[in-house]
Amino acid sequence: MAIIMKNRKIILKSRPAGQVVQENFELTEEELGDPDKGDILVKSNYVSVDPYMRNRMNSFKSYVAPYKVGQVIEGDATGCVIRSNSDRFREGDIVHGSWGWQENAIVKENSLTRINPDMAPESAYLGVLGLTGLTAYFGLLEIGQPSVGETVVVSGAAGSTGSIVGQIARIQGCRVVGIAGSDQKCKLLEKKLGFDAAINYKSHPNVRKPLMKVCPDGVDIYFDNVGGDISDSVIYLINNFARIVLCGQISQYNQARMATGPRLQSLLLIHRVKMQGFIVFDYREKYDEAMARLADWLNSGLLTSQENIIRGFEQIPAAFIGLFEGENIGKQLVRI
Amino acid sequence: MAIIMKNRKIILKSRPAGQVVQENFELTEEELGDPDKGDILVKSNYVSVDPYMRNRMNSFKSYVAPYKVGQVIEGDATGCVIRSNSDRFREGDIVHGSWGWQENAIVKENSLTRINPDMAPESAYLGVLGLTGLTAYFGLLEIGQPSVGETVVVSGAAGSTGSIVGQIARIQGCRVVGIAGSDQKCKLLEKKLGFDAAINYKSHPNVRKPLMKVCPDGVDIYFDNVGGDISDSVIYLINNFARIVLCGQISQYNQARMATGPRLQSLLLIHRVKMQGFIVFDYREKYDEAMARLADWLNSGLLTSQENIIRGFEQIPAAFIGLFEGENIGKQLVRI
Repeated sequence: MAIIMKNRKIILKSRPAGQVVQENFELTEEELGDPDKGDILVKSNYVSVDPYMRNRMNSFKSYVAPYKVGQVIEGDATGCVIRSNSDRFREGDIVHGSWGWQENAIVKENSLTRINPDMAPESAYLGVLGLTGLTAYFGLLEIGQPSVGETVVVSGAAGSTGSIVGQIARIQGCRVVGIAGSDQKCKLLEKKLGFDAAINYKSHPNVRKPLMKVCPDGVDIYFDNVGGDISDSVIYLINNFARIVLCGQISQYNQARMATGPRLQSLLLIHRVKMQGFIVFDYREKYDEAMARLADWLNSGLLTSQENIIRGFEQIPAAFIGLFEGENIGKQLVRI
Repeated sequence: MAIIMKNRKIILKSRPAGQVVQENFELTEEELGDPDKGDILVKSNYVSVDPYMRNRMNSFKSYVAPYKVGQVIEGDATGCVIRSNSDRFREGDIVHGSWGWQENAIVKENSLTRINPDMAPESAYLGVLGLTGLTAYFGLLEIGQPSVGETVVVSGAAGSTGSIVGQIARIQGCRVVGIAGSDQKCKLLEKKLGFDAAINYKSHPNVRKPLMKVCPDGVDIYFDNVGGDISDSVIYLINNFARIVLCGQISQYNQARMATGPRLQSLLLIHRVKMQGFIVFDYREKYDEAMARLADWLNSGLLTSQENIIRGFEQIPAAFIGLFEGENIGKQLVRI
């Protein structure tokens, strides 16, 4: 029996010029028919909004192709199989894919993975067990290479990746300092997530001074989610042979052109520092191993999943814009 | 029989404020007596002048302690043992040490190494077989990790380290592009040292365009001796998974305070670039192995030693100042 299903989706209406705004998006409707051979009709349960998406809204190529104007915003989502024309998925399966900001979608069978909601809540597959958790895991362990007793500083520490990085660093026996944008976030980091100290950068014109207090032995690893002035302040305290993990530069994404700042190379040279960028996709072959370890930590209580869930499909653009206003704590999701 | 020997030496008279000038130095005389037990009296044959010395003339600690005002400028030198009060050295031995800018010196036996002038000319022990060659060797091979067919760009390419880096890169099967400050230097790089291309940055307001021409496949390794605008231009052409070896930042050393430039972190992130500082001393344990390979290359003609030798003790400050005016080709030495 053929079905015709109404679908709502959010498309890129125009490319942001600097700061992203509601007007860059448009909610449109379409009708979906039966899935073709090998295709699956899914209904979204959770949709992820992530800072990296801002880069894809520009016209130039980054490590992934830019979104096209007029097309749906692609991104991580989880949901339920409504109708399957594939041998690999059945109606009722809970799946993870990248169909993005839409209520329903027809997707190819090889773009989905089945998830087991009994092992962890479905939403965790977009957070601690998804690309967010994997980003924290590979960035800290592969690039940062932490040793017991080292001092790890994380910026954007209350964000989706940062909150996991700090916890993994703690599990590795490091001293962990977070930088975040509110007293409430700092309290969460210190009281709930086991950070040794947290600094609210909004209370300090320059975080260098409070950082010096809580990093008496300097900084061995800096996990950078934000870039800009905050990062400069951390890097001035960098130790010999330190590692700077470039994970995100959220302070820069909404800038129309490349910002200027201090030339850090002399400092990196004198202290023999490694500064390295990475992208989680480069570690695809190790995902399974990493997810197993993350799930262990999660289920044993060593790792806490922080999620900030907004309800309502039409709230997606606001949830996304909020990422750049420092509103979210932990992984920002939209429940459909 | 006791001896009294006149010694001339060059001391740091005042710390440079920005650009280093002749007035920062003073030639003084002293009398040297017999060496104590375990000490050796040496007579300088060659004295090395190196860009890193500029950093030691500042008051703040870098990776080595600052020079003290009123004291002799320490640095690499070779010479002949005149009188020995040590079992380990005999009169007539040719030795390498760090007694610096003086005609004669009394030094501790454990601060000297004997060199074999039959294996390579004495001056090579300050150049291709000395810290210069070792710096090129470890920076390129350990941090840069070149693969056959990759494109390596070297700034300060006609300088002491740069000229060796390019040659080692060629030996490793890389495509090598040098950036230097005169047509004469570029000709030397291309015609004599086997660089695939060389760019005279003084003929171009921005080296990006000529670089794009000679690096059609982008840049896989950037060996940075200079910093500043030239480095920015190279880094804009950086490939995915490239390595930036921070060896020197000579354009910055004479600046009174930290310069500003484009924030490169987003670029490093997108392209998963590693930018890493290093100092040759960190590889001390591998010096012997490296010197043996460098000597092999030198003696088999794969590696050419470039030296610029100025004669006369009193010429040392001018030779040093000339390093920052881009005057030297290859290793700058002063023959005493």
